[in-house]
Amino acid sequence: VNLVAALRARLGEVAVLSDATDLAPFLVDWRGRYRGDALALVQPASTDEVAAAVTLCAEAGASIVAQGGNTGLCGGATPAVGGRSVILSLRRMNRVLAVDRDNNTMTVEAGCLLADAQAAAHAADRLFALSLAAEGSCTIGGNIATNAGGVHVVRYGTMRDLVLGLEAVLPDGRVFDGLRGLRKDNTGYDLKQLFIGSEGTLGVVTRAVLKLHPLPTRRAVAWLGLASPAAAVGVLGELQSAFGPRLAAFELLSRPVLDVLFRQFPEARDPLPGMAWAALVEFEDVGVGAGPAGEPLVAAVESRLNALVEAGRLDDAVIAQTHTQAERLWWLREHVPEAEKREGVAIKHDIALPVSSVPDFVESAGAALQQAFPGCEVLAFGHLGDGNLHYNVRHGDPAHNPALLLQQDAVNRIVYDHVKARGGSISAEHGIGQLKRDLLPDYKSAVEIQLMQRIRAAVDPQGIMNPGKLTGPR
Amino acid sequence: VNLVAALRARLGEVAVLSDATDLAPFLVDWRGRYRGDALALVQPASTDEVAAAVTLCAEAGASIVAQGGNTGLCGGATPAVGGRSVILSLRRMNRVLAVDRDNNTMTVEAGCLLADAQAAAHAADRLFALSLAAEGSCTIGGNIATNAGGVHVVRYGTMRDLVLGLEAVLPDGRVFDGLRGLRKDNTGYDLKQLFIGSEGTLGVVTRAVLKLHPLPTRRAVAWLGLASPAAAVGVLGELQSAFGPRLAAFELLSRPVLDVLFRQFPEARDPLPGMAWAALVEFEDVGVGAGPAGEPLVAAVESRLNALVEAGRLDDAVIAQTHTQAERLWWLREHVPEAEKREGVAIKHDIALPVSSVPDFVESAGAALQQAFPGCEVLAFGHLGDGNLHYNVRHGDPAHNPALLLQQDAVNRIVYDHVKARGGSISAEHGIGQLKRDLLPDYKSAVEIQLMQRIRAAVDPQGIMNPGKLTGPR
Repeated sequence: VNLVAALRARLGEVAVLSDATDLAPFLVDWRGRYRGDALALVQPASTDEVAAAVTLCAEAGASIVAQGGNTGLCGGATPAVGGRSVILSLRRMNRVLAVDRDNNTMTVEAGCLLADAQAAAHAADRLFALSLAAEGSCTIGGNIATNAGGVHVVRYGTMRDLVLGLEAVLPDGRVFDGLRGLRKDNTGYDLKQLFIGSEGTLGVVTRAVLKLHPLPTRRAVAWLGLASPAAAVGVLGELQSAFGPRLAAFELLSRPVLDVLFRQFPEARDPLPGMAWAALVEFEDVGVGAGPAGEPLVAAVESRLNALVEAGRLDDAVIAQTHTQAERLWWLREHVPEAEKREGVAIKHDIALPVSSVPDFVESAGAALQQAFPGCEVLAFGHLGDGNLHYNVRHGDPAHNPALLLQQDAVNRIVYDHVKARGGSISAEHGIGQLKRDLLPDYKSAVEIQLMQRIRAAVDPQGIMNPGKLTGPR
Repeated sequence: VNLVAALRARLGEVAVLSDATDLAPFLVDWRGRYRGDALALVQPASTDEVAAAVTLCAEAGASIVAQGGNTGLCGGATPAVGGRSVILSLRRMNRVLAVDRDNNTMTVEAGCLLADAQAAAHAADRLFALSLAAEGSCTIGGNIATNAGGVHVVRYGTMRDLVLGLEAVLPDGRVFDGLRGLRKDNTGYDLKQLFIGSEGTLGVVTRAVLKLHPLPTRRAVAWLGLASPAAAVGVLGELQSAFGPRLAAFELLSRPVLDVLFRQFPEARDPLPGMAWAALVEFEDVGVGAGPAGEPLVAAVESRLNALVEAGRLDDAVIAQTHTQAERLWWLREHVPEAEKREGVAIKHDIALPVSSVPDFVESAGAALQQAFPGCEVLAFGHLGDGNLHYNVRHGDPAHNPALLLQQDAVNRIVYDHVKARGGSISAEHGIGQLKRDLLPDYKSAVEIQLMQRIRAAVDPQGIMNPGKLTGPR
């Protein structure tokens, strides 16, 4: 029996695309690095339809590649080349199903856009705290499958910390119903954790219960000038001690990154020219209100930052006095990737380290790269509060960059070995997908890889869920 | 070959107890509900020794029951009757290995007492946030194995939220090294999550990296009088919106619970006599001050609570003006279990619900119990901020209580069916162990039970890790 015909019969004609032109945009990843093949794209409208599609694929021995907004950076949602894959797009399952203000939760379908989830929470006077560049097009299901991070992890955690429950269709077509909105539940293994960050290898997430927070009503944004990563780590600690969970972002940027930014966007103004390093910091707070003294959050931040400057802990600081100024500072941080892109290709890394190891890593890895590839340049920026750096390497002279790019494996090796030596991660927030799959055995122990493979085999004995991704072929 | 002799040869004479008198205290659980048998008690001093002991047991086909402080409430650390079990006590592995202030982490051995971990964090000007009644005798390993909760979950989460990495010895004696101090790591399945809350069924946790928080420097404690659980849920929401993460505890107590407390401790004073329900609420904050503003936290709390009283949302409130007054309010909450114990046996439940469902549950379950068992009395208290109630049922007339206790299964059924109907959990924070093992199939789906069993079999194919606990015999 023909699988595509069977899918059409069960889900309806319009839900199943198999024309090459229709399929094309779904067969390539967002960065255009990976291309694959698929028998069809299936767009179910309900959990039942997902289960039916998975069952039909399982019976036919076809692979299933779940896809949300297709914004991933590691090729995790792009099917393999030449295989018998069916892409299962969750885009039609895009509803916010319920908001429970008293429980501070929201139930959504997996294909709901992150921005729509944020808006629904906001409309109920609550915050859904995940925030990242692709929020207008990425989906909650993809955020779960990749355990998405972003700029507010230092305060709210990653997607894992924001999912209370989920529903997923298993590789055999049965439904795992863990769609609970509980903050405590010690009735056995926390199965939902397996699906979070599993990159579609264990099942298809169909619905989720998300954790909401009180809506912040006050905000302060500042731009800091810092002598070094060590100074940044020190200031981060001071601000955490002083402001606790009010610290909502701590984004570090190196001088070379700032140079690229202001070269590519000359209309933008450097808030603190000449600083070796800069940090964008954001604070937020809820409605308890300014006290009798009437001192707003901005003033508290200002006075603390001034004290740090006077103590020589901080080179300089500017605090946004208006919403527009705050937006302008964020604009700078948000345009770093675009500025780098305009200057051409670099060898990118998304790494995490213990925060305390970041200064030593930056110094050691930078020196090792310089020694191996004289004239190379590191563009480092990222979420220092989480120890997460986007650490991109290129040649300082564009004419020599193509030659450096050919040395990508050797560059990766230097960077990742320095990460590993400090107990770090070679993928902080982007995942493994196809991009880092073959590196994994060098940076995770054999015990870890085998545990993952055993669990994968236990949940998906047929091996049809996103084969070739994450732990590699079996 | 004799297993006990082999363990002695490998770990040393003093590390292996097999005398009946020596073993006795480890063969019974804290509440004295479960008793079992063991070939020996092994007390390794290092991860290597744990691995060696596990390997020897695996070769001999003996079961392994890990035990920390032996303070569990569900019999999870008590070996089975008549089986060939070895108790593996982690008590000698009790060190704090490192505190990393810049990374806000602490590395400890599994047998470290919770109170010692708290003290080590405090000495480094940091908070380790887990806080519960047994903290003077329970261990970090046990806290991990049971995903411990306690009174500050509303602010800091459960143990799961406080573990960044862990090391565990697998059933085959190999070591899973996930001892990382990272806040972001998307390199495959988050394997540590499996061990958290697994009650010793997947391996023996030997070390962990724990998350630290800034040490709170300000505190406010208040006692609220409330008309109903619905009023309590409303006030909880108001305080969360107003104070955000400053709200560190919200402990609800019903009138019958208060009556028991003040009857058993007549020297204690009811802060708000005659209230139908009461709540103990705690707020804490770090160095910057109270509100974002700088007014004392106590004043901010006082003014918000007064506004809620004036608005009729709250019947009355008293705010502790001194440290001693605050301690006295906490003393009341902390002595509820002892007061209940003094009045005799009740049928206990540790349940979780969506916070929004608590009022309806209290009303419906109470009515159903009253109809089935006229004259019964419910003693309900707990962590409303997490939807977690300790819901204990007895007969109002002590003379009739023994007869009610014989109906325990029927009482459980009514309570748990009302929990299940609202998407709740039959074990919020105490776990399953032996106590609720046979109930699990009625309250988790067959899909969930089978997923757990498959994962258990994948990690422990020989079935030697704490057999008979959690998912039951295989």
